[in-house]
Amino acid sequence: MALSFKLEANDPETEARAGRFTTVHGDVSTPAFMPVGTAGSVKSLAPDELREAGTEILLSNTYHLWLRPGVDTVRRMGGLHRFMGWNGAILTDSGGFQVMSLSPLRRVSDQGVEFRSHLDGSRLMLTPEEAIRIQDGLGTDIAMSFDELVEMPAPPEQVRTAVDRTLAWAGRGLAERERLRGEGRGAMALFGINQGGVDPDERRRCFEGLAGMKFDGFALGGLWVGEGRTLGLEMVEHDCGQFPEDRPRYLMGVGHPIDLIEAIARGVDMFDCVLPTRNARRGTVFISTGRLVVKNAAYAQDERPLDPQCDCYTCRRFSRAYLRHLFAAGELLGMRLASIHAVHHVLSLMRRAREAVVAGRFAAFRREFLDAYHSGESLAPSLSPGA
Amino acid sequence: MALSFKLEANDPETEARAGRFTTVHGDVSTPAFMPVGTAGSVKSLAPDELREAGTEILLSNTYHLWLRPGVDTVRRMGGLHRFMGWNGAILTDSGGFQVMSLSPLRRVSDQGVEFRSHLDGSRLMLTPEEAIRIQDGLGTDIAMSFDELVEMPAPPEQVRTAVDRTLAWAGRGLAERERLRGEGRGAMALFGINQGGVDPDERRRCFEGLAGMKFDGFALGGLWVGEGRTLGLEMVEHDCGQFPEDRPRYLMGVGHPIDLIEAIARGVDMFDCVLPTRNARRGTVFISTGRLVVKNAAYAQDERPLDPQCDCYTCRRFSRAYLRHLFAAGELLGMRLASIHAVHHVLSLMRRAREAVVAGRFAAFRREFLDAYHSGESLAPSLSPGA
Repeated sequence: MALSFKLEANDPETEARAGRFTTVHGDVSTPAFMPVGTAGSVKSLAPDELREAGTEILLSNTYHLWLRPGVDTVRRMGGLHRFMGWNGAILTDSGGFQVMSLSPLRRVSDQGVEFRSHLDGSRLMLTPEEAIRIQDGLGTDIAMSFDELVEMPAPPEQVRTAVDRTLAWAGRGLAERERLRGEGRGAMALFGINQGGVDPDERRRCFEGLAGMKFDGFALGGLWVGEGRTLGLEMVEHDCGQFPEDRPRYLMGVGHPIDLIEAIARGVDMFDCVLPTRNARRGTVFISTGRLVVKNAAYAQDERPLDPQCDCYTCRRFSRAYLRHLFAAGELLGMRLASIHAVHHVLSLMRRAREAVVAGRFAAFRREFLDAYHSGESLAPSLSPGA
Repeated sequence: MALSFKLEANDPETEARAGRFTTVHGDVSTPAFMPVGTAGSVKSLAPDELREAGTEILLSNTYHLWLRPGVDTVRRMGGLHRFMGWNGAILTDSGGFQVMSLSPLRRVSDQGVEFRSHLDGSRLMLTPEEAIRIQDGLGTDIAMSFDELVEMPAPPEQVRTAVDRTLAWAGRGLAERERLRGEGRGAMALFGINQGGVDPDERRRCFEGLAGMKFDGFALGGLWVGEGRTLGLEMVEHDCGQFPEDRPRYLMGVGHPIDLIEAIARGVDMFDCVLPTRNARRGTVFISTGRLVVKNAAYAQDERPLDPQCDCYTCRRFSRAYLRHLFAAGELLGMRLASIHAVHHVLSLMRRAREAVVAGRFAAFRREFLDAYHSGESLAPSLSPGA
């Protein structure tokens, strides 16, 4: 196994789990959140800041790196870890989601996805095999299987076709990794992705197919794309109920604190999302007591840190008044200090969730967390803190 | 004296000096370069990075901070040092240059400058007294006298009028500091600014007026505004020949490595300039062997650091290829890593210049520096390294 996952604790009242897996770039404790370094950097942050915030694994986007600077460049520069100066673990996505969301003129067939680059319009083809070769070329620790996404809502037959294709592509990706291993490459772990939209039967059918394949972990795909929290969490419960105990479970693209806690309660181990850092760059951060809009005039002379309960560099050293000024003046440092807090905050949430699971009190932790989050304490009154 | 300046060494062959002055926010060794934190941050950089690069003093712009967030906010937040999390020394400019360069509809009279804010169009008045009160309110370590600048080229009588006004305003600024001191405020040092454009007689006349006033240091004003390096350096030689030995000499707005070394050779002690950091954010950095345009395609697979002779964080950890990629992809981290190098590089130049003066070998150091700078070694061939 490219990834040895050890389940360390199960919460007695919920499905929450605490685990750990090992990569050649260090151990990763779960639940784990992966900050997103789309184009080979977590926007505005240096590797040391990610490490200081407790990052053990980050996500990078195959599609972006494939197009620019290209796999050849990254490989010649010693692989993605060395290229970006990050010696922790890296998970890469398959490129599928980005192709679907960023490329004009894409055409999906059983073979793969033909599309035009959003950068220069050049015609390209991404196949399940190519997605594996690219991720191997980048030197990732965990690769993702190339899957087909359906834009929701979609008619049932379209969802069925996508599931069929996802299963066929999953097998082809695994076979490609085997082939690479025969050449002394392909050392990375590979996760399968469960699809089926919000149809429990299709999700079950999809996983029945995936379960027989030798994946190192499983992802919950096609969720948090507009179906709403209630339905999304139902699907999480459904998928986790099927997934094996001994493999990590990764809910893709989820990063709101409430979603994270609720998904952990249903048995998810890993997450990634641009939400915390993208919000931060736009001047909104999650704190223990809700969502703080830094630019709000109410903070102009507020000497408190963004989050009085946070011990990140930003909260230890700077006031809301200073952050508010930086955003008002359009200073880059504002985006960066807010991003430092954002990454630290979400990773600290993961650590505390894990501690609660280990202590057998995750249910109480979840209640305390939600109470604090909804309290809106210390937020400017004009905000709706639960938003 | 608010500033005790100690001259520690004179170079035997040039006019270069090594000194040190003391502020309540630490000692400053000279020659010193002040990174520019216009609106209360050196763009993209955190205080710790400035400190790590060897920054002992930085410059902040009175005009910008006065308009936003306002002196009242900065004062309530404990002063500029605390507001921006910087515990080293700070010099503030008088606001005069910014008023002239940024404000529409300005009107200069003996009283001061009436203008409209470039932010909201509001009508404001900056006088020599107000400039001192604002700088005192910000809590600066070194304040600058409010002077009149003339856009060059200008007819002689306009230069004369500006010199007369600069002298009158210098006296009024000093008197205002005295008044503040009577109220237990105004603890900061105050520098006078010599004007007179590129007319040696006017510059002499200006300094004869300033020499009798109790300034803690003297600045060379109105230079590097288009007159060219040769003429500029002549004026530097001229001014430094008049300035007293026992007070720091500050050449405003100069930051090109060659200009720095040549001005030090003529007796200047202090500099500030946005050039190194602004260039860096735009993807051009000075290195030991010239000027490197990071985006150049020739660096796409160049594993070397920006400057193989530099030991800054960026050069210790990242390749030109990575920096080039970050700039090509529009990643904020690129601006930041380049800025780290830029500040480190110029401060390292100051340290080495100082060591050379102390060792009595500044003339040789200058030759070696210029030879290396003009060598263009390791730069992409398409560049003209001396530019």
